[in-house]
Amino acid sequence: MPDFTDNLRPSQPDGPTTLARERQQSNIATEELGQHLLGSDGFLERQARILPIIQQEPLFSKDQQQNLSRPERFKLGVARAKLLRRMKDTHKWSHLEYQMAEYLVDDVSPYFLHMEMFITTIREQASEEQQAHWLPLIESWKIIGAYAQTELGHGSNVRGLELEARWDSRSKEFVLHSPTLTASKWWNGSLGRLANHAIVVAQLLLPDSSSPEQYVSHGPHPFIVQVRDMKTHQPLNGIVVGDIGPKYGYITMDNAYMLFDQFRIPHSAMLSRYSNVDPNTGIYTKPEKPALVYGSLTYVRSNMVHRARLVLARAVTVAVRYSSVRRQFQDRDGDKTGPEMSVLDYPTVQIRILPLLATTFALHYTGLAMQTVYKNARQEIEKGSFNSLAHMHSMSSGLKSLCTILAADGIETCRRAMGGHGFGGGSGLIQINNDYLSKPTVEGDNWMITQQVAAYLIKKMTAAVGSPDTPGIDETDARFKEFIRNKRRPGSKRPTYDILNSDLDIAYDAYEERVIKKRNWNSLLIQLHKLSRAQSESIIVTTFFDTLSNDKALSTPIKSVLWDCYRLFALYTMENESFEFLRTNAVSQIDLSSLASRVQDLMARIRPHAVKLVDSWMIPDYLLDSALGRYDGRVYEDLFNRAHRLNPLNRITFNPNYWEDEIVKGSGGDGRGILSKL
Amino acid sequence: MPDFTDNLRPSQPDGPTTLARERQQSNIATEELGQHLLGSDGFLERQARILPIIQQEPLFSKDQQQNLSRPERFKLGVARAKLLRRMKDTHKWSHLEYQMAEYLVDDVSPYFLHMEMFITTIREQASEEQQAHWLPLIESWKIIGAYAQTELGHGSNVRGLELEARWDSRSKEFVLHSPTLTASKWWNGSLGRLANHAIVVAQLLLPDSSSPEQYVSHGPHPFIVQVRDMKTHQPLNGIVVGDIGPKYGYITMDNAYMLFDQFRIPHSAMLSRYSNVDPNTGIYTKPEKPALVYGSLTYVRSNMVHRARLVLARAVTVAVRYSSVRRQFQDRDGDKTGPEMSVLDYPTVQIRILPLLATTFALHYTGLAMQTVYKNARQEIEKGSFNSLAHMHSMSSGLKSLCTILAADGIETCRRAMGGHGFGGGSGLIQINNDYLSKPTVEGDNWMITQQVAAYLIKKMTAAVGSPDTPGIDETDARFKEFIRNKRRPGSKRPTYDILNSDLDIAYDAYEERVIKKRNWNSLLIQLHKLSRAQSESIIVTTFFDTLSNDKALSTPIKSVLWDCYRLFALYTMENESFEFLRTNAVSQIDLSSLASRVQDLMARIRPHAVKLVDSWMIPDYLLDSALGRYDGRVYEDLFNRAHRLNPLNRITFNPNYWEDEIVKGSGGDGRGILSKL
Repeated sequence: MPDFTDNLRPSQPDGPTTLARERQQSNIATEELGQHLLGSDGFLERQARILPIIQQEPLFSKDQQQNLSRPERFKLGVARAKLLRRMKDTHKWSHLEYQMAEYLVDDVSPYFLHMEMFITTIREQASEEQQAHWLPLIESWKIIGAYAQTELGHGSNVRGLELEARWDSRSKEFVLHSPTLTASKWWNGSLGRLANHAIVVAQLLLPDSSSPEQYVSHGPHPFIVQVRDMKTHQPLNGIVVGDIGPKYGYITMDNAYMLFDQFRIPHSAMLSRYSNVDPNTGIYTKPEKPALVYGSLTYVRSNMVHRARLVLARAVTVAVRYSSVRRQFQDRDGDKTGPEMSVLDYPTVQIRILPLLATTFALHYTGLAMQTVYKNARQEIEKGSFNSLAHMHSMSSGLKSLCTILAADGIETCRRAMGGHGFGGGSGLIQINNDYLSKPTVEGDNWMITQQVAAYLIKKMTAAVGSPDTPGIDETDARFKEFIRNKRRPGSKRPTYDILNSDLDIAYDAYEERVIKKRNWNSLLIQLHKLSRAQSESIIVTTFFDTLSNDKALSTPIKSVLWDCYRLFALYTMENESFEFLRTNAVSQIDLSSLASRVQDLMARIRPHAVKLVDSWMIPDYLLDSALGRYDGRVYEDLFNRAHRLNPLNRITFNPNYWEDEIVKGSGGDGRGILSKL
Repeated sequence: MPDFTDNLRPSQPDGPTTLARERQQSNIATEELGQHLLGSDGFLERQARILPIIQQEPLFSKDQQQNLSRPERFKLGVARAKLLRRMKDTHKWSHLEYQMAEYLVDDVSPYFLHMEMFITTIREQASEEQQAHWLPLIESWKIIGAYAQTELGHGSNVRGLELEARWDSRSKEFVLHSPTLTASKWWNGSLGRLANHAIVVAQLLLPDSSSPEQYVSHGPHPFIVQVRDMKTHQPLNGIVVGDIGPKYGYITMDNAYMLFDQFRIPHSAMLSRYSNVDPNTGIYTKPEKPALVYGSLTYVRSNMVHRARLVLARAVTVAVRYSSVRRQFQDRDGDKTGPEMSVLDYPTVQIRILPLLATTFALHYTGLAMQTVYKNARQEIEKGSFNSLAHMHSMSSGLKSLCTILAADGIETCRRAMGGHGFGGGSGLIQINNDYLSKPTVEGDNWMITQQVAAYLIKKMTAAVGSPDTPGIDETDARFKEFIRNKRRPGSKRPTYDILNSDLDIAYDAYEERVIKKRNWNSLLIQLHKLSRAQSESIIVTTFFDTLSNDKALSTPIKSVLWDCYRLFALYTMENESFEFLRTNAVSQIDLSSLASRVQDLMARIRPHAVKLVDSWMIPDYLLDSALGRYDGRVYEDLFNRAHRLNPLNRITFNPNYWEDEIVKGSGGDGRGILSKL
């Protein structure tokens, strides 16, 4: 049927024209910057190679996925995950190549926990004998496993878990039992519908040596448990397990609930690399270094720090490109000739998007630094040295808290900066937004875990105050000691601090409140949260600064604009915390008062490079899945295509007459048909 | 089948026990406070009467709605809206009663635009003759209408709309034509699938009187247009119309796209109360007072200000109740006996929830004040006096911007404060969150419209500077003149300002930049946004203060805790803008430094009343649809019920073996079945 809309074009200048001009006006080389950011470990090469393979599979088409129900969408998620795993075999992909394919498809894999926490826990906490038995089954996906720790009533407080694993010394078995409803496992991904095995974390209950009728808890321990029949895939007797239902995001993940009713598992189920129960005597051997048990948590947090940059880069890519293409109003003080202004030329749009553009680079360098700290600490630990464990744990906690907030809030800020179309499915941000909103909470709530950072810093400050004149044993210690020496120097002028050291005063204040004045810990929580944030901000700014200072490879135009991004990030961060900087005398009131105009000047300098800067993140259109963020700028054509050609709702004709029961025109009285789905 | 989970209870103290204690420990009377807040116009009485009627209709069950696809969910929305309209007839409901029923069902009605913008525009802008023809058809729902103004390429800049209505003087018709793709109407609710009529806003093109072959635009004008056949419900020839597809929220709304191809409408289609085209001469009569045309926008903004409080109250109700029931960790400095602490006892949880609890009351009083200002101004306008139009427009713009941000951000803050379960469907916040995220953008983008406030205030300040000694003609004028008189008094000490007057300096600065220094408007946008925000904050704080000061009816316990809420709101707001207050010398650095501890003290005072304060908003469980926010505190039982008994995904058994194409166990090789939905 002829359709007059086929011949219509957007008003001029259109998106392609506008983006071509944007790219012409900047002298930075996106290929060079892209390689600088993502080239080192072959990421871009893999992306270029695997993208066409993925795009030619109809199952990976994203056109209709927003129109599916939860059950349909979950089925699609399973079908895609299975196909991806088969493609790994077919194409002989390495794990990195397989991860690239998953990243491009952009579903949270329903097998994610099998591939990550399940196998990692076996590798780290199972004995050699256990590993020999389980790893081949796991690696071949002969069994599918999950990780069941969190419960309905307990998350952050792992020691409060209620599920019991009671040692039966007669049968030499453990008895898993959920004494209450709140003891139900909850949120455990890959377990609701898919897994047939799970690591189950339960309170280890052993007979009290003095009165064997009494049981004593030795705290939460991991057990490997078969939970479903390998043939029927039904839960085993004594186990109730299922999916918890719809959530904000993670639509393709089957987060589980699971309860046990006097369910018996063999002695060999307890993962026994670090701790064990002697099957004959019932005597418990506890781990030498309990902190090791939490190794995988630090690993996960470090990864979240590193991944935040690409998540935010996606949102910023969409926002920068669309805000260039989108035009609204002419300059109020201008001559009113020519086209309307690109909205990215308004300072009120810039102030929301450009600091976030700068943040993508800040997060990138910090992510790399975090990875390095993690790798070095792991190497030391493997060699038996635990000196860097506490530092790594603190750094990963503080940065996980701050970086996931910056990314999560950043997505929403970008969305709002895009006006009406930001609310539409063509933004490409709905799924990433819904999925990412989990990050401020999972793997340690962002407010909770800042206590761990503060506790570490107070301990370090206490040590520095105790012996300020001895050489620093690590970087933090050295900084703190120098701060203390400056502080006590009689009559000396208080040194001028800057944003790189703004956390020192706050750390000292916290030390004073807690250690000297012995204030109640809980009463200090808000202050301790601010301390963690200040320290993490200082790490990010310092890392950004150091990286650019030490770089010898980047071309001048790129280096210059990255320095502007550094300044923008630092000054914008400072402006948001102006009063804190003033209160601690880190910056003068006059300098603080000039921040707003300095930020605005920096944004004007970065503005011409904005499109090329986001181009450098090299995020393919297929991954963006965004009409607004398309590389070619054909924003309006794509929005119209999604509405006019792809939307299945437009294939249904409705009956609008309220006095008629019929909903779909011509179906007769089907008004109650929808009732069957309720 | 026996299910051992039927006998399980949550660990103790459980939710009901905890909430009972919470309610015991506060001496405030929720019934009294509830009546104070919502009793005056019979809201609570209506709610109590209509709730049971709604709850007994199976179609209004909310159990499964999160599991439906977009097309199914839209069908459900239509079925519910039609049933509601039939119930209005059956029960002889007034409009207020009908609105109550809609509020409780909590779907965005797909007929919303018919009932609001369509009929309102006819009432306000149609001639008497037109009204006589159309109003009976609209009121009886014989025709269903929408309001089509926004286009694919233009929203805020109404003058930039591209759709043309060209006057054909021979046939005496208007010709509607979309010259480009971006001229497509877009976002127009109720039009995508339902409406058969629409108000269509188009550029009125008339022949130039000097050269009749040339056409001149007289700007956007509204026309009433039939768009679908009354029998087949298909679009008329020359019209393409449909639904734009999935969005963040508004799943039951059919936001439309619509284009015209030389589509002819009669002369009578142009709404002609204020402007008209003479059918014989083609001569145009323009509106006497163009601002009147925007009357309905101010109405909508005022309503959004008023409604923000109940939206935020929902989120805060859930957060306060769940944070009382939820326990995590024992006091680190305590004796470690007894149950874990309610998380609402942690200052880091309080600082996120309790200022928002205070904000619900702040928004309430401001919403009432806004309604009063609107009603008074409308009355004056009806009498022919336009003095209060500019003030009302500015106030509604500034408050719409601030109040919708406070509510939208507040929902998300509450969600995050609830940890893992805040991410789940049992939070009851997913739909309200997704729907409400539209509010910062619709009816004037929250950043855009602050320019209108700033322009108004700069004009008022310019007038005050011009004649500071004459009596103030209105409240703003009087405040500004007093400020100017104080400012110029030679040698006099600058008066101490407080939070009630913190906007004055910022308004003066903006005046100075724009009027004296003649700075470019766009370069000032960020500063102007801050000015609007400061003024709106000042209005909210002042209104809260005045309301409590003038109240003679509230009992002492309630009055006392509301004063604490006032203080918390004011000091929390001040703390967030500390540097601005310091910069303008409104508050001293010492006072600002003490804010954090004063805020913490106030939260400790409000904490025992928190549950009863949210109870006073009287939001029924049916509306909350939240396991976490239930009045009876049976949080964990409800979460488990949703997962174990209601979740349809648990009725599907999956095949987890990646090497097998089968997805649903026993279905055979159905792996490609899902493909048909893509």
